[in-house]
This record gives sequence, C-alpha cells and structure tokens, in this order.
Amino acid sequence: MTVDNGVAANGTSKPGNGKDISAYSVVQIDRLDHKPPLPSVLLSPFKLDHGPPTSAAGNPEEIAKLFPNLFGQPSVQLLPSASPTLRADAKLKIGVVLSGGQAPGGHNVIAGIFDYLQNYAKGSSLLGFKGGPAGIMRCKYVEITSEFLYPYRNQGGFDIICSGRDKIETPEQFKQAEETAVKLDLDGLVVIGGDDSNTNACLLGEYFRGKKLKTQVIGCPKTIDGDLKSTEVPTSFGFDTACKIYAEMIGNVMVDARSTGKYYHFVRLMGRAASHITLECALQTHPNIAVIGEEVAQFKQTLKQVTEFITDVIVKRAEHGKNYGVILIPEGLIDFIPEVQQLIAELNEILAQGIVGDDGLWKAKLQPQSRALFDFLPQTIRDQLMLERDPHGNVQVAKIETEKMLISMVETELARRKSAGSYSGTFKGQSHFFGYEGRCGMPTNFDATYCYALGYTAGALLHAGETGLIASVGNLTHPTKDWTVGGTALTQLMDVERRRGKNKPVIKKAMVELDGAPFKKFASVRQEWAFEDRFCSPGPIQFTGPTAEDTNFTLMLEQGCQVVF
Amino acid sequence: MTVDNGVAANGTSKPGNGKDISAYSVVQIDRLDHKPPLPSVLLSPFKLDHGPPTSAAGNPEEIAKLFPNLFGQPSVQLLPSASPTLRADAKLKIGVVLSGGQAPGGHNVIAGIFDYLQNYAKGSSLLGFKGGPAGIMRCKYVEITSEFLYPYRNQGGFDIICSGRDKIETPEQFKQAEETAVKLDLDGLVVIGGDDSNTNACLLGEYFRGKKLKTQVIGCPKTIDGDLKSTEVPTSFGFDTACKIYAEMIGNVMVDARSTGKYYHFVRLMGRAASHITLECALQTHPNIAVIGEEVAQFKQTLKQVTEFITDVIVKRAEHGKNYGVILIPEGLIDFIPEVQQLIAELNEILAQGIVGDDGLWKAKLQPQSRALFDFLPQTIRDQLMLERDPHGNVQVAKIETEKMLISMVETELARRKSAGSYSGTFKGQSHFFGYEGRCGMPTNFDATYCYALGYTAGALLHAGETGLIASVGNLTHPTKDWTVGGTALTQLMDVERRRGKNKPVIKKAMVELDGAPFKKFASVRQEWAFEDRFCSPGPIQFTGPTAEDTNFTLMLEQGCQVVF
Repeated sequence: MTVDNGVAANGTSKPGNGKDISAYSVVQIDRLDHKPPLPSVLLSPFKLDHGPPTSAAGNPEEIAKLFPNLFGQPSVQLLPSASPTLRADAKLKIGVVLSGGQAPGGHNVIAGIFDYLQNYAKGSSLLGFKGGPAGIMRCKYVEITSEFLYPYRNQGGFDIICSGRDKIETPEQFKQAEETAVKLDLDGLVVIGGDDSNTNACLLGEYFRGKKLKTQVIGCPKTIDGDLKSTEVPTSFGFDTACKIYAEMIGNVMVDARSTGKYYHFVRLMGRAASHITLECALQTHPNIAVIGEEVAQFKQTLKQVTEFITDVIVKRAEHGKNYGVILIPEGLIDFIPEVQQLIAELNEILAQGIVGDDGLWKAKLQPQSRALFDFLPQTIRDQLMLERDPHGNVQVAKIETEKMLISMVETELARRKSAGSYSGTFKGQSHFFGYEGRCGMPTNFDATYCYALGYTAGALLHAGETGLIASVGNLTHPTKDWTVGGTALTQLMDVERRRGKNKPVIKKAMVELDGAPFKKFASVRQEWAFEDRFCSPGPIQFTGPTAEDTNFTLMLEQGCQVVF
Repeated sequence: MTVDNGVAANGTSKPGNGKDISAYSVVQIDRLDHKPPLPSVLLSPFKLDHGPPTSAAGNPEEIAKLFPNLFGQPSVQLLPSASPTLRADAKLKIGVVLSGGQAPGGHNVIAGIFDYLQNYAKGSSLLGFKGGPAGIMRCKYVEITSEFLYPYRNQGGFDIICSGRDKIETPEQFKQAEETAVKLDLDGLVVIGGDDSNTNACLLGEYFRGKKLKTQVIGCPKTIDGDLKSTEVPTSFGFDTACKIYAEMIGNVMVDARSTGKYYHFVRLMGRAASHITLECALQTHPNIAVIGEEVAQFKQTLKQVTEFITDVIVKRAEHGKNYGVILIPEGLIDFIPEVQQLIAELNEILAQGIVGDDGLWKAKLQPQSRALFDFLPQTIRDQLMLERDPHGNVQVAKIETEKMLISMVETELARRKSAGSYSGTFKGQSHFFGYEGRCGMPTNFDATYCYALGYTAGALLHAGETGLIASVGNLTHPTKDWTVGGTALTQLMDVERRRGKNKPVIKKAMVELDGAPFKKFASVRQEWAFEDRFCSPGPIQFTGPTAEDTNFTLMLEQGCQVVF
C-alpha cells in the first residue's frame, strides 16, 4: 500500500512523494486510524479570554528590554462561546518545525495543527520545514497534505519532516528566517521543541513583530526529559511514552533479578540535565535504589559518597540473603557532582597545555581533591577521560558510561569490605543504558491525545492572531473533555543568564524539586524499596484495556492526585 | 493485597508464605485473571494413541545402549474419546522443576500442570523444586497450592520456585534424585528446560525406570533462543515473547535512525548458539543488515569479510545520502567464525604458558593467520582478550561486546576507504545489547496459551503413566482449539557426541537452516532492506486488539504459512 501526496493513480510506490506504509506492522496500521479525543472547548465555538499582563520568571526588567514588543502580554484561555469568534474563511499559511531530539507524539502535534486548519480555516495550508530550524533558514519545506500526513498519525519519530539542532541565533540567521517568512507569506509558525527552542521561538516572534511582519510564532512543549514545564505547562510531550517504555524494560529486568537472584542491574536512563525520567521510572517500578541527581547536587555528595550509599544497601541486602537488585541512575549523574566537574575542568586545562606522559608526573598538577578523585576512579574511566576527547581536545563527559563506572567502584568497595570482614555476599553487576529505545517509541494514548490537543491549540492561537505564546493544555489528569486550552506568554517563563558578558534570555529547565510531590512520594517509600522487594513490572504499553488511558505518576502527583503504592 | 499460601486472615503481608502482589502494576493484576484457552482435546474426555516404535535422531544403536529401558518407545497423541480413559480418582504426587535461563511463560506451564491435576485428578499434589535441579538433589521444595500459584499466572520470570543451572550428572547425584523421589513418593516429575535439561530429564526417566521406581519424567521445551525444536516440537516457549520485546525496541531504534539520519545502530541480540532470535527480529523489523551466524559459518567467513560486507552496505547507502541504518548481530557471532575460535585457542595456550610481556614478542607464537586477525582487532578488544580472563585463566569470549567490536572495525575500514576516495559519507555507530529485557518479559498471549497447554499436556501424560516424553503441542498456527496435543519420545530427538572419550546423549540444538523457510524468506528480501528503508516497527506487545493472538514469523514460515511483507 502506498500513501502519497495526492492519490497514486496506479497504486505503485512513488518514493519521495509520500511515505510507503506497505512495510508497516499491524499495530502501526491499527494506530493510523486511532482518533485522539479533543478537549470539549475545541469541539464547539470558542472565544479567547485574555488574562492580566504578565511578568517574567526572573529579572523582568532585563526580559522587558530583550522583548520590547512581547514582554508583558497576557496569557490566554479558550472558553466556550455562543457563536464562532474567528473568521471561518481565513486562509492561513502556517509553517511548522521540529527542533532538537525526538519525542513520541511530534507527528500528532502536526496532525492537530493540520486538522484544526481543515476544520476551522478551510483552504489554509501547512508547510513543514525540513530538518529543523535550518529548514526555515534555507527555506526548505514540504506542503503537508492529508495524504502526506496520514502515514504519520499516532506514530513515533520525527521522520515526517525530520528535526535538527541548528539554532536561529545570529543577525544573519534572523534575516534568513525573515526572508523565508516573507517569501512564503507565512501567517504563522509553530516551533515544536524544548526549552532552548521555545526561547528561540520567542526571540523569532519578537523579531518578526519588531519588523512589522505578520508572521506569528507559537511554541509547543516537547522533550522526553520532562524538564520543560511550569504552572501553565504541566508537562512536555514524549515524557509519558519514554518513561513507560523504559519502565517496561526495568520491570522485566527486575523480574529477572528476582528470578536468578544473582545480578545487580545498574540501569542508566536518558535525561542529562534533570532526573525526572529516573524519578518517574522509579515510581513506576520500585527499584532498590534510584539516584536522583538533584539530590546529589543539593547535598553536595561526592562520587565516593554515592558509591558508599549504594554499597551500604548491597551489603545490608546480602545480610538478608539477597545478592540481587536493580539500581537506576540518571544519565547526567556526574554533571550533578561538583568534584567531578572540577576534575574535568582541571584535566581539560592540563591536556590543553601539552603532552601527558606515561610517567604520571602530570598528576601533580591536579588539586589534591581532584587528584584523590582521579585515583579513586576505575582504570577504564581514567583511560576514557585521558584518551577519548572531542575535536577541541576536551574530555567527553557524555561518553562516560556512568553505570559501568559505578559497578566498578562498587566492586572495589565491596572487595574492601570483604577483606575487612563486613561483607560476605556475592556481587555481579549488569549494566544497561535505556535511551534511544524510548525517544522514538509509538506514543501512548496520553501522548497521542496531548499532542493532538497541543497542535489544535497552536492552530487556534495562530487563527486568533496570537504570537509569542506556548500552547498550554491543562487539567491533564482529568478526562480529555475537561482539559483546559490556552497559550502562555513565553516571556513569562523566562529569566536571564549571563553568557560571555551578555544577558541571554532562557527558559529555566525545571529540575526535580526535592520538596515537590513526586520526590517526596519517592522519599517516603525508598527505604522500604531498598530492602523489601517491592518490584513492579508495568508491562508493555497497552493501547486498549484498563491502563490505556493512564497518565504518569509525576504528572498525577504534581497535580495533587492521590497515589497509593 | 496479599495472596498467601492459604488465606491471610487479617490481610497483612506474610513474607515467605506467598507472594505479595500489592506492588503489582495494573497490567500485572489484569493479567492474573487472564484465562488462556485450551486445545479442544484437553477439554473433554481423551484417550492416548500410541504411534509406532521410534528411533533416534542419529546413532540409534548408541542411543539404544544408553537408554535400554526407554529407547524405541512410541510417541503419543491425545485424541477425543467417548468417555474418560484415565482414573479421575487418581491422587498423584507430581514434582516440577525449572532448569536454566528464564523464558516468558514458565509460570503458565506450572499453572497448566496444576489446573490439569485439579480438574482431572482431584486430590493430587504438586511440589515445586526450588532453585532448579539442585532442589531435587537437596529435596528442597514447596507445595504449590491455588493461592500460592495465583500471583504468578501469566506473569514473566521464574520466581515462583526460581531456576538453576546445576545438572544431575554423577552417580551420586542420580542417587540423590532417587532418594528425593522415594522420600516424596513422587509419581511424576516435570522438567521445564532447554536441550540439556531435556536430555537430563530423559536420563533421569531412564534411571528411575531402571531402578523400577514409579516416578515418571516428562520434559517441556523452554528456551528463548528457539533452538530446541523438531518436527514434533514446533517451538520452544519464550521465543515468541522475547523476540517481540526485542523487535519493539529495534523498531523504535529504526524510527530514531530514520528521524535523525545520522546513526548506525548496531544491535546485539541474545542467543549464543543459534541465530533464530536475530532472524525472527529481522523478519519482524526489516533491518538494513542482519548477520546470521549459521550463514557466516556455512561460508566460513572471516571477521574481515563480515566487516567488509557491512562496510559495503554503509558505503552504498551513503552514495544515496543515507548515513544511518540498523544492523542486527547475534550474540554468538564470533562463535561461528572459525578463525576467531582458532585465535582464542592459541591465546589460551600462550597465556597458560606464562607471562605475556608488553614488548609484544609473545605474538610471534601465534600462527600467521591468528597473528593477522589479532592485529586486525580493535585495541579495546585486544585488551579485553588479554586482560579479562575467567578463573581458569581463559579468554572470556562471552564478555566481548561484538557490536562494539564491529563498530570499531567498520570505522577503521570506512576511514581506509575515505582515504582511498571511495567513501565520502559520515558514520556514527550506536551500540545496543538487548538481552535481559526480553527473557523475563510478561508472556504474550501466544506464550501464555502455549505454556498453559504444555503444562496441561505434561499433567495428562503423567496421569496416563507415560515417561521419557517431551510434551508436544502442535498445529500452533491454527486456532488454539485445533492444536494437537501429545508427547514425543525424548530418545527420538537424541544423537550421541563424543566427550572426553565417552558417548554422551545430546538433543542437538536446532540451528537456523539456510534452506529453511524463515531464512529463505529473509534472503529473498534482504537486498531490498539493505538499501531501501523498509523499516517496520512492531510496537509494544498488545494483550487485546488485532495483534493480540499473533504468533511469530519463524513459526508461521516453518509451518508453511504464507507470509507477505
């Protein structure tokens, strides 16, 4: 079967025009016709309710200077209206771009925008910029038609128009974006991305407004990491699906751990800046230990302390005859440990200065604390730090396999305790990294519905003439019909950071809050999880049945829902 | 909620008596009450139809000598009967043991035996030997009651009684097993295991028969590797679930590859001896390359040839602008390459002789071909070969991360071609190992049903007085009601191997047949898959919906079903 941009007259494949779905699995085909429900407010005439003027997350004076045209604008809510308030005969020309790493549901955002335009502004067109923001700058795009879109509905990945990590930053690049907007006569642009991309979206909206261009810009919150959220934007899409995929695998590994009784599985989970994924996976699966980076940072823990904490649990479990377990580690763990950052900074300095001999004399240049840490690291990690460097000669922190490093350090510590007579168990570590498996999974019903609503919302906001807003769909733990729909002023989410002597606007990443409900829930049960096996196996994501409409624990707890384990 | 061995009067947890399911996920709870359907023949009165005398898979004279009491006995089929042919008031005492690595569905085999006894021989009892065959030898067991069993129904893992890798081999060990059988007054024993365990089951059945013990022994085919099968035993349980879990992950990674367009994902899959898992996952997902160990062995390919084959595909894809892809590799790949085996044998010899200096002079001791191969290997693999050795000082082949080794070798070859001007693409390898995630997954409906039928069958065969058979349930690509049910003489599956000057009976592992339907199907499409992206994403296993009752491609193709991609 071939789905094409227009109808393939003879039914044969026309590569490049549309996606060939003849290779699709039965589940993929089945999902194509899944119709995500919509919030009620989007199903009947609505009006826009503008709130009071907004400020910024921090340094409002600076944000006001950076966004003279957009700062202070109100956020909006869509409310039911007796009759349509927007022109149904508006023919809009809208662009859409996917920015940064994949997250399940991106295709449904695009489907939501498309269907909104079809239903409320017939005759409009939707252009997809290819390969991320570079597609805007180079004016590379594809027109998204019903037939072109169909094969991507409810499917994972970003392959409909692909994504990219370029940024629109320099004056030349803003000029290029302007040229594209003018050339294509764009009424609006939807930027689907994370914190950086939404900051960029706001800058672009500001720039267009300053240039008196008609092109409005609306952002959509995307990232599996879950670190783009606020009061108004309760979650980023993709987090739900990715966590559930990882949790399925963790649950399986737990059953394995208990069945064999001889392995400690160290599972590293994607999510560099914040530990939301690790925390959510912990809430879903009840591991013996889940290391939360924000807690490590808060208490300024050293790598040695983290190692000893893990070792303590292993030793105590061994005393009860349990030589197995499951330990979750956030990908970004070592970024949370100040002493590691310090060591890496010093190493980069030393490596930049010249040759590092085999005699080890160069180690004398390290500060005593860094020297001690370096000697504490396993040999393989030391080699990795010294040998594998990026094109600038810097240590590649991202390449360090934290889970293997911890296994090795725990082994050493256990051997020490065994010699000292305080441990007599057995230890076999198995390492796992769950990352790419999750970020392109088929979206859960929640993500499929949430994304479709986000896209619909973005369409409505553009239709209503709004710019500089992020689509915000709320009340997500209630039935979809009751979800709230609106747009939040992007400037309201912003603060400034000094970078290279300049004030840069940023949407601050939402970190795991140690006094937030998800962490507090975890903290209240983790002692029990450490020693009693309370393993939970969520199983594979189901699209029908009792769990099909479930959301996730992080969202439920943050929204004040009661969760009982 | 606490489920106990008996009813927990006050509803509190009694650790050790029964499994506490209060931590179970909703899907786990939901699956507890799933009732697998049964083949019709097991639902109404049946009789046993004995076939003709059997022979052996090879060397029948030798097998006859090794199994004087069992050799030649007929296989049996259960057929509908007008009235019950077995005594309904028989009170049987049956033991069951899980042997070797986990496979999804093991709990349902036990549930099948239990329910058979409840329905057809009320008053019987079922004892589960703990921790594998060692549990038989040490007479460690637990009585399996309805309440004790309930929390494990349709769940993954082997944690109900756990498993073990001990074997009953020496005369003393057979004596211990005999003592247990006599002490517990066992009428029968069900051994759930792979090829080795079923060989062991047959030896035990022979031994008991020779000793005139009443204890009958029935085997059940278990292994995710899919290498225990024959005409009569169409598949081993667990293969279906494990492959579907791996295929879900591979499908996700494929979507990622196509979305980003910049990674080659090298996925190593569990399955050491045979490449069935890799082949099945290829049929489910359509990767650019799937290396099948049996083909590598058949054509005596060298590691260099495998590397060059992969490199050729990557280069040709780059010419079409595709610098991404997915490549599947069986865990046991290097076991299939004769030159690698030769090198390892020589290294073990050299390492055993004494110190290997940093000067590299020891390399002169290698045969020229081995020396060339050693120099061809990436540095990390050379280090691994030389440094990480088992307690006997031998190279640890199992620890070699084949996927990383291939990435490194492909990188080198691509760099060579780039210098030579025959390649101008970009290459970034990402490595994955999918193993533990699969072998303890929640069983698919197919595995749940198949295992339940196997258990029921084992119960019926014991009830009918049979011994030395493996439960064989056939016609599996048809509706469950039409499945055939019987027992195959284990001696029929056997051949002999000379080991340490002695004839040892073995059930030969079923390898991927290069002239078998699954491989031929793969071979007919792989050229297209290599260059056209025909990626297929099976998505998560569904317990309801259009795919819920699916089986797998290997089974369908082997059973002569038409499969169209």
